[in-house]
Amino acid sequence: MNKQFTRVGIGMVLALGLSQAALASPRNEPIQPIPQATITNGAMVELGKKLFFDPRLSKSGFISCNSCHNLSMGGTDNIKTSIGHNWQQGPINSPTVLNSSLNLAQFWDGRAASLKEQAGGPIANPGEMAFTHELAVDVLQSIPGYVADFAQVFGKESLNIDMITDAIAAFEETLVTPNSDFDLWLKGDDNALTAQALAGYQLFKDSGCVACHNGPNVGGTSYQKMGVIEPYQSASTEVGRAAVTGKDADRFLFKVPTLRNVELTYPYFHDGEASTLEEAVDIMGRLQLGRVYSEQEIGQIVAFLKSLTGEQPRFELPILPPSTNATPKPIPFG
Amino acid sequence: MNKQFTRVGIGMVLALGLSQAALASPRNEPIQPIPQATITNGAMVELGKKLFFDPRLSKSGFISCNSCHNLSMGGTDNIKTSIGHNWQQGPINSPTVLNSSLNLAQFWDGRAASLKEQAGGPIANPGEMAFTHELAVDVLQSIPGYVADFAQVFGKESLNIDMITDAIAAFEETLVTPNSDFDLWLKGDDNALTAQALAGYQLFKDSGCVACHNGPNVGGTSYQKMGVIEPYQSASTEVGRAAVTGKDADRFLFKVPTLRNVELTYPYFHDGEASTLEEAVDIMGRLQLGRVYSEQEIGQIVAFLKSLTGEQPRFELPILPPSTNATPKPIPFG
Repeated sequence: MNKQFTRVGIGMVLALGLSQAALASPRNEPIQPIPQATITNGAMVELGKKLFFDPRLSKSGFISCNSCHNLSMGGTDNIKTSIGHNWQQGPINSPTVLNSSLNLAQFWDGRAASLKEQAGGPIANPGEMAFTHELAVDVLQSIPGYVADFAQVFGKESLNIDMITDAIAAFEETLVTPNSDFDLWLKGDDNALTAQALAGYQLFKDSGCVACHNGPNVGGTSYQKMGVIEPYQSASTEVGRAAVTGKDADRFLFKVPTLRNVELTYPYFHDGEASTLEEAVDIMGRLQLGRVYSEQEIGQIVAFLKSLTGEQPRFELPILPPSTNATPKPIPFG
Repeated sequence: MNKQFTRVGIGMVLALGLSQAALASPRNEPIQPIPQATITNGAMVELGKKLFFDPRLSKSGFISCNSCHNLSMGGTDNIKTSIGHNWQQGPINSPTVLNSSLNLAQFWDGRAASLKEQAGGPIANPGEMAFTHELAVDVLQSIPGYVADFAQVFGKESLNIDMITDAIAAFEETLVTPNSDFDLWLKGDDNALTAQALAGYQLFKDSGCVACHNGPNVGGTSYQKMGVIEPYQSASTEVGRAAVTGKDADRFLFKVPTLRNVELTYPYFHDGEASTLEEAVDIMGRLQLGRVYSEQEIGQIVAFLKSLTGEQPRFELPILPPSTNATPKPIPFG
């Protein structure tokens, strides 16, 4: 009886919340709010979370997905280009894993069509985790805690790399960041943005940034040339989309990055050479739009960009099942 | 009224729990249960948790305390010797941070008297995080989110290394692992241990292991020679306690490691050369006690050791406050 009464009370609060949301009038803008994650297979998400944090998917036993897509730091490593096995310097800036399910494809050059396909890449890349899919399967297959998890999720105890990347992708699909100030504004809350941020958004639209940075992920929907009006000067040898298509016309086309949580995902561009948002906005204006923003304008756009920081995924640090005597040993050195 | 009734209900449940605990008859043994952590300054613990996970305390921006004392993996890195800045190979196996507040001192050679003193070591060690205390202070001082946290905890906005290490130590003091099967047995639950584990514990006591591995941490209370009956053969150049005292008599004396969660903290010994518990028990028997355990006896002792795995610390992955334009940049390469 007591319990029931409490439930009614909670129901009333929920109903109030819903009706308030219903009262808000959503705006018709080229950027849409980030939807909440819908979890259809909780057990697979939990398994994927463990795998995402497990350095035993690398040769050294030291590097996990979270090493370069650190969920304490906006899903990035906040360095220009990543550190791989044996401290190898990566060729490109690690893109954020946050909201990555909203991108048209994965990697800067879009060479992976899906999160599942992406997840297999770094594991087997000699410059990153430097492992093989076969060894990753052998390691996990030797760990009873994992075998039980895979059996629960996939209905069989014999693991394969598809099951591993399915689970990692399922976890990554939950890594969305709703309810940024900008999204609250989009949903009708006039007080969610400062006047400066609102002016920045207006300028962002009027001067053409929104032509590429649009949709729920404020980017991630097309490949564009880095250096439209002026060429982009970089020490990086990355050629972008051309590496996938083989077409000369695709040289220096990169996937337009999401601007969601861009306050957290410094440094910027595929080579990580822009350290600050101010620098990035200035360079984008000149190279992509042929426009030199004033200091005041840059401040406005940066204020808008900072309003794109959403609620970060919150979850318990996973506890990993221990290896056994049969588990292949990591090889950190030599 | 409704709320009050619910509170009475919870109070009754708590009272029942307490009286059940009071009914259990604790055993008088040379090993005592791990006490629950008592948190006196929650804000300091939360700050310390962020710092523990923050790779910006390293030169590269890539290595955090959690890199080598991974709380997903028993507070260790599960490799023989750790990976430091620029992939340098560490000289010694990373001891677990779990229950480390119960040790008489920190590091294998006891060179740090406290967790606070220990915490400053790896940050400034050129082979580990390769930073300086001054730069660590500069980095955190440049981050408003941290300055606010430090102001809340210490009452001032001007940071120093003492405040940093105080906070890390406060977090580490919470990293205890109570309620292992063995502790439940110690508290009077006859069904908590298998017959094999109980036989293993009896043998552990009767054959002399408990002379060094005793107390709540099943170790951590003294320095002992590695290789009492026979010398320990190792490629490691570590001399142990002698490095601190300068005394020849202290060569190859190491702090007796805790056996709490030893199932999770492989590989074993200061050089990490024993991969399995079976191997470690066999070597310890021969070198320290002059006793060759049978396969059955080793199995019994290992079953006892696995009963020492306690409840792992459970907490939300911390979200770190972002750097600002003023934050000194990490230097991962060169």
